[in-house]
Amino acid sequence: MLFEKIKSDILAHNSYIIGAGGEAAVIDPRRDCQVYTNIAEAWNMKITGIFETHKNEDYVSGSRELARPTGAEILHGRREEFGFGTGVGEGEMFGLGSIELEVLETPGHTQESISLLLRDRSVSDDPLMVFTGDALFAGEVGRTDLAGEDQRREMSEMLYASLHEKILTLDDGVIVCPAHGAGSVCGGNIGDREYTTIGFEAATNRLLSLEKEEFVEYKVNERLYEPPYFAKMRELNKSGPPLIYNLPHLRAVSARDIRSLVDQGAQIVDIRSPTSFAGGHIPGSINIWRTGLPLFMGYFLNYEDPIVLVDDFNLDLDHVVRHFVRLGYDNITGYLAGGFPAWFKQGERSERTGVWSPGDLAENLDDPSVYILDVRNINHRDEKGYIRGSHHIYVGHLEEHLDEIPRDKQIVVHCDAGFKGSLAASILQKHGFRHVTNLLGGTLGWEAANYPLIRERATLAAVPGGAT
Amino acid sequence: MLFEKIKSDILAHNSYIIGAGGEAAVIDPRRDCQVYTNIAEAWNMKITGIFETHKNEDYVSGSRELARPTGAEILHGRREEFGFGTGVGEGEMFGLGSIELEVLETPGHTQESISLLLRDRSVSDDPLMVFTGDALFAGEVGRTDLAGEDQRREMSEMLYASLHEKILTLDDGVIVCPAHGAGSVCGGNIGDREYTTIGFEAATNRLLSLEKEEFVEYKVNERLYEPPYFAKMRELNKSGPPLIYNLPHLRAVSARDIRSLVDQGAQIVDIRSPTSFAGGHIPGSINIWRTGLPLFMGYFLNYEDPIVLVDDFNLDLDHVVRHFVRLGYDNITGYLAGGFPAWFKQGERSERTGVWSPGDLAENLDDPSVYILDVRNINHRDEKGYIRGSHHIYVGHLEEHLDEIPRDKQIVVHCDAGFKGSLAASILQKHGFRHVTNLLGGTLGWEAANYPLIRERATLAAVPGGAT
Amino acid sequence: MLFEKIKSDILAHNSYIIGAGGEAAVIDPRRDCQVYTNIAEAWNMKITGIFETHKNEDYVSGSRELARPTGAEILHGRREEFGFGTGVGEGEMFGLGSIELEVLETPGHTQESISLLLRDRSVSDDPLMVFTGDALFAGEVGRTDLAGEDQRREMSEMLYASLHEKILTLDDGVIVCPAHGAGSVCGGNIGDREYTTIGFEAATNRLLSLEKEEFVEYKVNERLYEPPYFAKMRELNKSGPPLIYNLPHLRAVSARDIRSLVDQGAQIVDIRSPTSFAGGHIPGSINIWRTGLPLFMGYFLNYEDPIVLVDDFNLDLDHVVRHFVRLGYDNITGYLAGGFPAWFKQGERSERTGVWSPGDLAENLDDPSVYILDVRNINHRDEKGYIRGSHHIYVGHLEEHLDEIPRDKQIVVHCDAGFKGSLAASILQKHGFRHVTNLLGGTLGWEAANYPLIRERATLAAVPGGAT
Amino acid sequence: MLFEKIKSDILAHNSYIIGAGGEAAVIDPRRDCQVYTNIAEAWNMKITGIFETHKNEDYVSGSRELARPTGAEILHGRREEFGFGTGVGEGEMFGLGSIELEVLETPGHTQESISLLLRDRSVSDDPLMVFTGDALFAGEVGRTDLAGEDQRREMSEMLYASLHEKILTLDDGVIVCPAHGAGSVCGGNIGDREYTTIGFEAATNRLLSLEKEEFVEYKVNERLYEPPYFAKMRELNKSGPPLIYNLPHLRAVSARDIRSLVDQGAQIVDIRSPTSFAGGHIPGSINIWRTGLPLFMGYFLNYEDPIVLVDDFNLDLDHVVRHFVRLGYDNITGYLAGGFPAWFKQGERSERTGVWSPGDLAENLDDPSVYILDVRNINHRDEKGYIRGSHHIYVGHLEEHLDEIPRDKQIVVHCDAGFKGSLAASILQKHGFRHVTNLLGGTLGWEAANYPLIRERATLAAVPGGAT
Repeated sequence: MLFEKIKSDILAHNSYIIGAGGEAAVIDPRRDCQVYTNIAEAWNMKITGIFETHKNEDYVSGSRELARPTGAEILHGRREEFGFGTGVGEGEMFGLGSIELEVLETPGHTQESISLLLRDRSVSDDPLMVFTGDALFAGEVGRTDLAGEDQRREMSEMLYASLHEKILTLDDGVIVCPAHGAGSVCGGNIGDREYTTIGFEAATNRLLSLEKEEFVEYKVNERLYEPPYFAKMRELNKSGPPLIYNLPHLRAVSARDIRSLVDQGAQIVDIRSPTSFAGGHIPGSINIWRTGLPLFMGYFLNYEDPIVLVDDFNLDLDHVVRHFVRLGYDNITGYLAGGFPAWFKQGERSERTGVWSPGDLAENLDDPSVYILDVRNINHRDEKGYIRGSHHIYVGHLEEHLDEIPRDKQIVVHCDAGFKGSLAASILQKHGFRHVTNLLGGTLGWEAANYPLIRERATLAAVPGGAT
Repeated sequence: MLFEKIKSDILAHNSYIIGAGGEAAVIDPRRDCQVYTNIAEAWNMKITGIFETHKNEDYVSGSRELARPTGAEILHGRREEFGFGTGVGEGEMFGLGSIELEVLETPGHTQESISLLLRDRSVSDDPLMVFTGDALFAGEVGRTDLAGEDQRREMSEMLYASLHEKILTLDDGVIVCPAHGAGSVCGGNIGDREYTTIGFEAATNRLLSLEKEEFVEYKVNERLYEPPYFAKMRELNKSGPPLIYNLPHLRAVSARDIRSLVDQGAQIVDIRSPTSFAGGHIPGSINIWRTGLPLFMGYFLNYEDPIVLVDDFNLDLDHVVRHFVRLGYDNITGYLAGGFPAWFKQGERSERTGVWSPGDLAENLDDPSVYILDVRNINHRDEKGYIRGSHHIYVGHLEEHLDEIPRDKQIVVHCDAGFKGSLAASILQKHGFRHVTNLLGGTLGWEAANYPLIRERATLAAVPGGAT
Repeated sequence: MLFEKIKSDILAHNSYIIGAGGEAAVIDPRRDCQVYTNIAEAWNMKITGIFETHKNEDYVSGSRELARPTGAEILHGRREEFGFGTGVGEGEMFGLGSIELEVLETPGHTQESISLLLRDRSVSDDPLMVFTGDALFAGEVGRTDLAGEDQRREMSEMLYASLHEKILTLDDGVIVCPAHGAGSVCGGNIGDREYTTIGFEAATNRLLSLEKEEFVEYKVNERLYEPPYFAKMRELNKSGPPLIYNLPHLRAVSARDIRSLVDQGAQIVDIRSPTSFAGGHIPGSINIWRTGLPLFMGYFLNYEDPIVLVDDFNLDLDHVVRHFVRLGYDNITGYLAGGFPAWFKQGERSERTGVWSPGDLAENLDDPSVYILDVRNINHRDEKGYIRGSHHIYVGHLEEHLDEIPRDKQIVVHCDAGFKGSLAASILQKHGFRHVTNLLGGTLGWEAANYPLIRERATLAAVPGGAT
Repeated sequence: MLFEKIKSDILAHNSYIIGAGGEAAVIDPRRDCQVYTNIAEAWNMKITGIFETHKNEDYVSGSRELARPTGAEILHGRREEFGFGTGVGEGEMFGLGSIELEVLETPGHTQESISLLLRDRSVSDDPLMVFTGDALFAGEVGRTDLAGEDQRREMSEMLYASLHEKILTLDDGVIVCPAHGAGSVCGGNIGDREYTTIGFEAATNRLLSLEKEEFVEYKVNERLYEPPYFAKMRELNKSGPPLIYNLPHLRAVSARDIRSLVDQGAQIVDIRSPTSFAGGHIPGSINIWRTGLPLFMGYFLNYEDPIVLVDDFNLDLDHVVRHFVRLGYDNITGYLAGGFPAWFKQGERSERTGVWSPGDLAENLDDPSVYILDVRNINHRDEKGYIRGSHHIYVGHLEEHLDEIPRDKQIVVHCDAGFKGSLAASILQKHGFRHVTNLLGGTLGWEAANYPLIRERATLAAVPGGAT
C-alpha cells in the first residue's frame, strides 16, 4: 500500500497520495504536481482519482493540472458547484485495489467539506486512516470565519456536528491526516505533530472537549487573520485555476533595467534576511525573506504587476518560484541578475534600515522621539506579553493603518524574531517613513537578553506559528 | 516537532529521526547515514542521541558511523554487552526539547530489545508514538527463532509478555513505528501499512488475539528462513561495525580483465532482469536483479572475494552500491565497463538460459524429461498452491540441495513471477546444469494464463513479500 | 568571456553559448533549451541573440522555444525565407559586450548556411573562433546531398568555394566550432576531436587538400544515408516548430492496457539491449536500444501514432524522452509501468529472438538453411570486410527490402556489434519472419574470435560511427 | 576521443581529462576528484595516468587522492624530487589508445614544470593540443617570482627559453590548454578566453613579442601578490597531501555554542554579501563572501583553529566546503545552525558596519575626520586611478599594516566593488577599529555615479580579476 504525505513547505499544506493494486489517488494536490506522478511512477501505479476535501482558500488547487497528464477523475463535495470535477456525497465509495475510500460529509469549514475514510479490505473492515481536510487538525479545528461573519455561527455549529458525529465516533486507533500542519494560516494554532490519531486528539485537543455552546462561542469569537489573497484563491479554486504546464522561467533583469521596471509598477521583493536588507536595499522594495514568502506575499502583492526578486547570490530561486506559483502569482517575472550587489556596483544609492540590538532599545525605551511598533499577531502579543510603551498593528494590516503612525518620530518596529519586523520596516520605508529601525531578535531576543515583557491577561487563544 | 521515517528500500528497514528544540535523535540508523545529518541540517537541529532498539541481524548498524561526525551518544538495551555505546533500561528518559523518550524493555526478538515511548510534554503527558523495533510490526510480531532453536520457546514467551504487558497496554491512539515494513526478512508477513496504531493492531493483528500458549506454539513452529549473512550482521553489530566514511567507489573493469578476475574467484553479479539474463550472460555469473539484491545477496555472496557487477547500461549504480554497503559487503569492487555488451563485442561466448511462457510449460507438463523445480518459499507454495508435478527447493537453499536435482533432465525452474526463478537458474548453470529453463511469469503468469495450481491445505502461515 | 559547448549526446549535435558584458548569444539551440538559460543565469547574462547557422535537418530547432522566455532575436542566413526570425548576410556584425560576431555566408550544405566569426575586441582584432555550422567539421565537410540529386553538384561546388574562400583563408590559429561531432548522421565521417583549428584541419583533413574537381566528384558520389525524418525536420525548421514549453510527461501504461494500445496502432519501442530483447519481448515491438534512439528512431517511427516505451526497470526515462522531443516526436506518450516483467507476470506470451555467439555462426556457415544478413551501412561493409556468404541490406532500409529475404530460412542478422542487428531482428519479427537470430558481437566479435572477414576493395569512404 | 576541461570555479584552476581506446589520463587533478572518475565512467574508460605539470602552489593536488580508487600512475617533471609519483623527462611518450602524450620540459615557473603535447595518431602525426601548465596562459605567461627573489631572474630566463624554444615553435593551429583561467592568482592578468591557440597567442599576447631582455626585465619587476597559503601548498604538494576520502561533513553549531568556540580561537567566517554583513554580524567574524573564498581565505585563515561558517539561510554549503578542501583547510568544522538570525534571536548583540553610497563619500571627501582606505591591488589602483585623498593598503596585507591606520578617525574602506572593502572592514573591526564604513560599489560605483578617479601614470601591468 502506497501512502505518502507531501508537504508544501512553509505553507504547511499537506497533500497525500495513496494507492494499491496499481491504482493511486491524490488528496488535495498542489499546483506544482509532478511530485505525485513521480511517486506513482516509482510505485508502478496509475493515478486514477483526485480528491478535493474542500475548496481551498490558501493555495491554488492542482487538481486540474494533475488531471491533464494522468486523465484522473476529480472529485469534490457535492454541496457546492465547482467549475470542474464531480460532486460526491455521504457514503460514496472509491476503490484502489484493496483500498477503499468512503466519503464523510463534514461541513463547517466550508459547506462542501468532506473527509475520506480509508480501509484496507485485504486486512480488515476497520478503518485505518481518515483524511480530515480542514475539519480537524492536530490540536486544532478548522476555521469557520472564512464564509463571512454572518455565517460564522452556523458554520461553527456544523463543524461541531461534523467533528462529534462523524469524526470522533471513529475508533481511537484511526490515524488522522489533516490538510495542514503547524504554521498554516488555515488554523489558529495547529500542532506540529506529523501524525496524530482519533484517540490522541480526543484526549488532548482542548477544542474537542468543549460543549457545543462553548465550542461555538469560542469559534465565533476567535481572532484570526485572513490574508487578502484568500479571496482570489476561493474564486480560482471554484472556477478551476489556469493551467501552467510547468514552472515559469524567470527572466534575468539587469540592474540597468530594474529602475524602469519599478517606474512601470513592478513589485520588487527582496527575499534576503533582515540584516541583509538593513545593510542596503533598492528603495521601494519590500522585504519578505525567502522562507516567509508563502505566509506574507498574499498580504502585500497584487496579481497584476510584474514581480521581480532580489537576492544576494540568487541561490535556489527555482524553489522560491514554487511559492509564487502555489499561490497563483503567475506574474512572477524575473530576478535581479548579479544580485543586490549589481545595484550598488552601478553607483545607485542603497537605502538602509536601522537595526537595534535589545540593549539599544532598552537604553532608548523612554526616549519620547522613539515610537515602538509591535507587528506580531494580536494573539501572540496577548499571550506572550509586550514591551513597555509599544503600540500594536499586525504586519499584515500595516498598510491600512499607516496614518496611526507618527511620521516625525523614529519608528522602532519589532516582531518576535526580526523577520516580520524587517518586512514591516520595508513597508514603512516604501511609504515614505524616514527613520525606521528594526529590533533584531524581536521579543525573543529581548527576553533572552533579560529584558521584561508585560503580560496582562491569559487567553484561551494560543500562539500560532514559529518565531521568524 | 521533527518526525521523519527513513526507509531503506527493498530491505524494508525503517529508521526514524525525531527532534524538537534544536535537538534530534535517530532510531536504528543505517550505515549510509548522511540522510540523517541532511535532515537535521534542514531543521537546524543537532543530532544528540542514537538509539538501537535491538542488535540488528539484517543490516549493518549505522550508529558508529553517525556518531563520528555528530558526536551523538549511542544507546541500546542494557541486557547485552555491545562493543560500543551505553546500555539503557526500563523507565530511563531522554529529552529532546519538549519531547521525551521513555525506554520500555521489550525482550523476545532479542534479549536486549527495547521500545521507545514518545511524549510531547508541550502538548500532553499522553504518549503519542511508540517505536517498537522488531517486537511489533504492522500485522506481524518479531521473529523468535534467531537466537537458536533451544531458546525459541523462551524467547517466544518473553515476546508475548512484552507485547501484552508493555505495548498493548498503551492507549489505542498511540502510533506504532516498527523497525521494518512489508517485504522484510525480519518478519514472516509484515503488512504494507506505512503507519499503524495500537488500536488498529489490537483489533486486526491476529497474532495479538492468541492466548499465550497458542502464541508460543505458533511462534515455535513458524517456518522462517534465515539468510546466512544474518550471522555476520549479528557479529558486526555486537562488536561495532567498521567505519566506511563514504560509499565505496566502484572501479571500471574492462571486458578483458573480467576473465582473470573470475579466475581469481571474483563473484560476478548480473543485476539485470530475467529475460536480459536469459538472452545472454557471462558464464559463471549469478543473476540477482537490482531490486532483489538486498533480499538475496545475503544467501549467495561471501564477504571475501571481490564482487563485480554486470548491467547493460550501468544506470544508477550508486544506488545499487548502497545495498551492498548496508549489508556489510565492503568487498563490492567494480562493474563491467560498457555493460554486458562489452563482453560479446570481444567475441566471448555468451551463455543463455531457456525461457518458457506458461503455454510452453503446459504443453510439456507430462514430458518425463522435464523436471519442474519450484523455488518459492514453502509458505507461498503451501498457501497459493503448486504446479502439478513440481518439486520444491527454496531458492535460498538451492546450493545445499543440488544433488537432489537430476542432471540429465531439462530443469524448468519457476517462482511466483520469474526473478527468483532466474536467480535459481543462474545458480544451476553455475554448478554445471546444462538444460535450464526459467518459467517467465512464474505461478502468477501461470494462473493469469488460466492454468491450475494445486492447493492441498490451508495454513495459518501467511505469504510474505511481493511477487518478483 | 562566456564560451560553452552544449552537446546533445548521441545525436552529436553541438550548440554554443557565448557572451560578454552581460549579454549572451546561442548558436543552433536545441529544443529542450533550459540548459542555455541556466548557463546564462549562472553567468549573470541575458540571452539577446539566437543564431541558426543553417536550416537543420536532423533535429528540431530550439530557436523559437528559447526566444519565448528570453525575448532574444532569432537570426539566420538570408538566402532562404524562414517562417520566423530575421535574415542576415555577409559581413553583418553583432556585438555582445566586447565580443563581435561577423556573418560569413558559407553555402553548400544548404543555400542559406552561414558561419560566424568571433572576435574579442578587448583583446585583438584577430578572430579567435569560427562557428562553421555544417560547412566544416573535424576531419569532414558538410553533406551536399540533402537538397536533392539534381542540385548535388552545384551545392558541392558552392561548398568548395565556401571552404576555400571564406573559411580556410582564416589564420591557422582560429578555433573551429562545428555544429556536429563524431557519430552525427550529418557528416560521413566526423572526427572525434572536441576542438580543432583551421591549421589542424588544413593539415590533416584530406577533403580540404583535394582540388576542386576531385572534391566535387567525391561529394557527388559519396554514399550517405538520409533518414526519412529529415524531411519532417526541414519542414518544421523552415516554418517554425511547435512550442513545447516543457518536456512531455509520460503516462504510465499498465500491462493490461498495452494490448489495446497496440491494436490501436501504438508504436511499441523496446529500449533495452540486444540480449534483453532476445530473452523476451512484446510481440510487435521494435528494439531501439536507449543510446541508439537518436540515430534510428527517425527511420522507423511515424509522427502520428502514440509511442510507448518498454524498459526493464524504467530508469532515467526523463533523459530518454529528450531524444524524442529533439527529433519532434511529440507523440511520445507513455511507458509500460512495471517494465517488461509486467508483461509476463500477466501470463502473456513473450516472444524471443535467437542469439548466436561467433562460434555458433562459424559452425553453421555452410548450412544452406541459414541466410546471413548484414545490416551495417555499406561503407562499413566495404571498408571492414564481410562474413562469407552474407547478404547486405542497411538496417535503415530493411522495411523496403523485405521481399528480398527468404521466409523459409533461418535469418541470422548481424551488424558490427549486435545492437543494430537486434533492431533489424525486431523489424523482421514484426513483419512475420519466424526464425530470426542475432549475432552477438557482430563483425567485431567475429574478428575478435579469430574468424575472417573478406575485404574486396579499399575506398576513400571512411567508416562512420562507433560500433553498436 | 575524450577531452574535457574541468574548471574549479573562482580559483580558476583548469584540469583536463583526455582519453581514447578505453584509457584516460587526468592532468593536474584537484582534490575533490570524483568528477574525473564520473566522466571516465560515463565514457567507459579507466584512468591509467595522472600528470602534474608542476608542483602547484595555489591548491592541493588531487593526484594521490585520485590514484587511490583508480590505481593510476602519477607522473611529474623529473627535475625535482616529489614525495610520490614518478619523474618524467623531455621526449617521454605515454599512450592512451590512439592518443600519445609527449613530455616537453618547460621550466621557468618552477624548475620541474612540464608541458604535454597531444597527438591523435589515428588522425595525424601533427600535434593537436598542448597542455602548458603554468608556462603559458591566454594572454599571460607564468609567474617567476615564487621561487624567491634571488632566483627570479634565472627563472624568467628559463621561462623565456621554454616559451620560445619549446612552445612557440609548435604549429599555429595547436590548441593551448593552460592550468589556469582568468581570475587566478597564478598569473598577473590571464585572459578570459576558454580556449586559445599557438597562433592566436603568438599574434596577440604582448609578452610573447618582447625580446629576451625586455621580457626578463618585465618579469623581474612585475608586481604580484603571494598569498601566505602558497607556502603551505608547496610543502603539501611536494610531500604528498593527506588523503581525505570524501568531503568533510560540517557540524551544526548552535548559537549557544558559538561563543565558546570563539573563545577557544575558532575562526568565524561570514560568507554573506557586504550589505548583509554590514547590517549585522557576530563580533570578531571576518567577511569573505562565498564566491571570494578561494581567493582570500588563504590570506586570513590559519590551518589549525577550527573554522565555522556563518550564512543567512545556509544554502549550498556543500559547494562552499569544496573551496576549503581544495586549499587544504581540513580544519573546516561547522556552520551556525539557523544562520546569522540564530545569533540575534538569542538576544546577542549584533555588530554593524557602516555603508556609504558614492554620494555619501562625495559629501564627506574633505572631512578631516574621514580616512579613506583603498584596499585594491596596487596595479588596479595605478591603472584605473584613485579617489582623491585615499590611502592604499592591499586587503591581503592589511593585518601587517594596521599601525599605519589612525584609530581616532572614521575609516572609509573601499575596493572596486564593495566585497573586498567589506572584507577589509571586517578585519579592521576585528582588530578593534570602531568607526568603519564600506563604500558600496567601490570605484566602479563611484565612477558610475560620475565622480572622478585620479590617474597618474600608465603602466604595462594590467588589472587582474573581476570586480568584487
